[in-house]
Amino acid sequence: MGELRQDIVTGQWVVIATERAKRPSDFERTRPARLPNEVDDCPFCPGHEHMTPLEVLAVRPEDGAPNTPGWQVRVFPNKFPAFETGSAVDPAGGLFPVRPADGQHEVIVHSPDHAASLGTMPAEEVELVLRVYRHRYRVNCDDPHVRHVHIIVNHGRESGASLEHSHSQLFGVPLVPPLIELELEGAKLYAEQEGECVFCRIVEEELESGERVIARSSAYIAISPYASRFPFGVWILPRYHLESFGEIDEDQLDEFAEMLRGILGLFHDRFGDPPYNYYIHTAPCDGREHPYYHWHLEFAPRLTTLGAFELGTGMMINVTTPESAAAYLR
Amino acid sequence: MGELRQDIVTGQWVVIATERAKRPSDFERTRPARLPNEVDDCPFCPGHEHMTPLEVLAVRPEDGAPNTPGWQVRVFPNKFPAFETGSAVDPAGGLFPVRPADGQHEVIVHSPDHAASLGTMPAEEVELVLRVYRHRYRVNCDDPHVRHVHIIVNHGRESGASLEHSHSQLFGVPLVPPLIELELEGAKLYAEQEGECVFCRIVEEELESGERVIARSSAYIAISPYASRFPFGVWILPRYHLESFGEIDEDQLDEFAEMLRGILGLFHDRFGDPPYNYYIHTAPCDGREHPYYHWHLEFAPRLTTLGAFELGTGMMINVTTPESAAAYLR
Repeated sequence: MGELRQDIVTGQWVVIATERAKRPSDFERTRPARLPNEVDDCPFCPGHEHMTPLEVLAVRPEDGAPNTPGWQVRVFPNKFPAFETGSAVDPAGGLFPVRPADGQHEVIVHSPDHAASLGTMPAEEVELVLRVYRHRYRVNCDDPHVRHVHIIVNHGRESGASLEHSHSQLFGVPLVPPLIELELEGAKLYAEQEGECVFCRIVEEELESGERVIARSSAYIAISPYASRFPFGVWILPRYHLESFGEIDEDQLDEFAEMLRGILGLFHDRFGDPPYNYYIHTAPCDGREHPYYHWHLEFAPRLTTLGAFELGTGMMINVTTPESAAAYLR
Repeated sequence: MGELRQDIVTGQWVVIATERAKRPSDFERTRPARLPNEVDDCPFCPGHEHMTPLEVLAVRPEDGAPNTPGWQVRVFPNKFPAFETGSAVDPAGGLFPVRPADGQHEVIVHSPDHAASLGTMPAEEVELVLRVYRHRYRVNCDDPHVRHVHIIVNHGRESGASLEHSHSQLFGVPLVPPLIELELEGAKLYAEQEGECVFCRIVEEELESGERVIARSSAYIAISPYASRFPFGVWILPRYHLESFGEIDEDQLDEFAEMLRGILGLFHDRFGDPPYNYYIHTAPCDGREHPYYHWHLEFAPRLTTLGAFELGTGMMINVTTPESAAAYLR
């Protein structure tokens, strides 16, 4: 029989549909999604720097001119930005409210190697990508138009990726997105009522029970979240309390790279390079403090398809219990 | 340049990313998604009634025994229900809240013909399907476990459908889903502030400007909603004010069938039988009145894929302006 589980932070109810439950092996046949673009046409490959907007950052171990090969990680504005400052749109209210989609939208190419992927790259290359994350996070946080920085990966066609070459996107959003608002409100309420951070409490409880823990290190745990919105969804939670990803120190960054690479590598091996998304949930850059918030990363393999129930209700149906997912992944 | 549009009812902001804008022809190559199940294996085809749970309703023009061929529309509980009453789950609170997923989950098979689809079926067959919707809506509304009845279609594999044979699903949900809550709150607030129904007002304004109107009849309009969450998304709004789909009369039902069939047929012709979802938004069955609410249908062709930005923020990026979508569809 199914159950409804509530996420204690967001208040969202998720249907854990055990009648529809799938075994891990039902998903294992997932094939790598090879996208049609060839290396020759790939705008993210070295030698094709002219196919992208001018870079805003590149890590060049041996120096060299901007927008030429020789880089290890490269960052440039998205050619088709969702957010960009300078719009002529006038804010309006009434029945049809509108405001300019001010902000930033950047692409972070992870490696010059077209076939590289974060789950299989050497650890030091993943560390480098995360250093670039932190740097661009801080720069974009300082943009007065930006209230929230959302760093994401779409990997594989079924995840929404339009290009195969491994990359992240950074969105500098001019408002605090609804799911971040929900988490902020829930975390604040919990802190006011219980006198502690709800994420710290979750970490403690999950470590104690162990049934949803996939991996642990001195500074992080990876769990199947109790009310996971996705089959085999994973959260990487810092064991230390910190509101913003932008504030992590060197050791925390290196250990995070190791944990992230481990989880991505695990899925690569177990599910045959499945399509996936991840995104970093971190406090708004709104000039205020959010001492009750706790940054983390959410990972969702795209093993099922959202249907009309999910789109129409805003509720998710998850066909795999988080406990069985964690047991399989451990 | 892009703009952020707010849905006046839900308060949700949508990014209309004109820089990423696609022309209608970019989507036209969408191929029909043929699912792998053969007619021989199809549990929804006549002669295979034993492959489904026992029917709760079937329209048999020439009578005949239950669970045998001869039906025109057939309804039975979902074999893998997301909601089902009788669970042994004990409600719990604390850090890991849970409650039983009580409720109903039914399948409504639209036609004995495996290849039929609502956009191309004769009008009277679509009317029959909608009569069955209304009947099962009323029956499920009376279930004391059910607080909201959500009727949906997943058409095509990329829409979340797992079987090809045209069918709807009815979910009797034991709580009011978040998106319905948002609409209720927004509609209530608007009614309190402006003294009228926000949906009635939208109908009036859209008819006046005409720029987002796709089709109109005496009782309905089909529009590209101003803050559409999906490229080429469509709402069918009643021009009359009524909170619940369960209360529509015969004429309203027949005219709704005609409008729905027209929109689905239009997409079938223009986009080559694309995958799509639709769902009916209607007032909760919670024993209370919702005089400020106004039932409607939301349609979403699945022309793009939700990515990590949408999953992580709860905000949608729409790459086609509603005005250009409506102009193309008119």
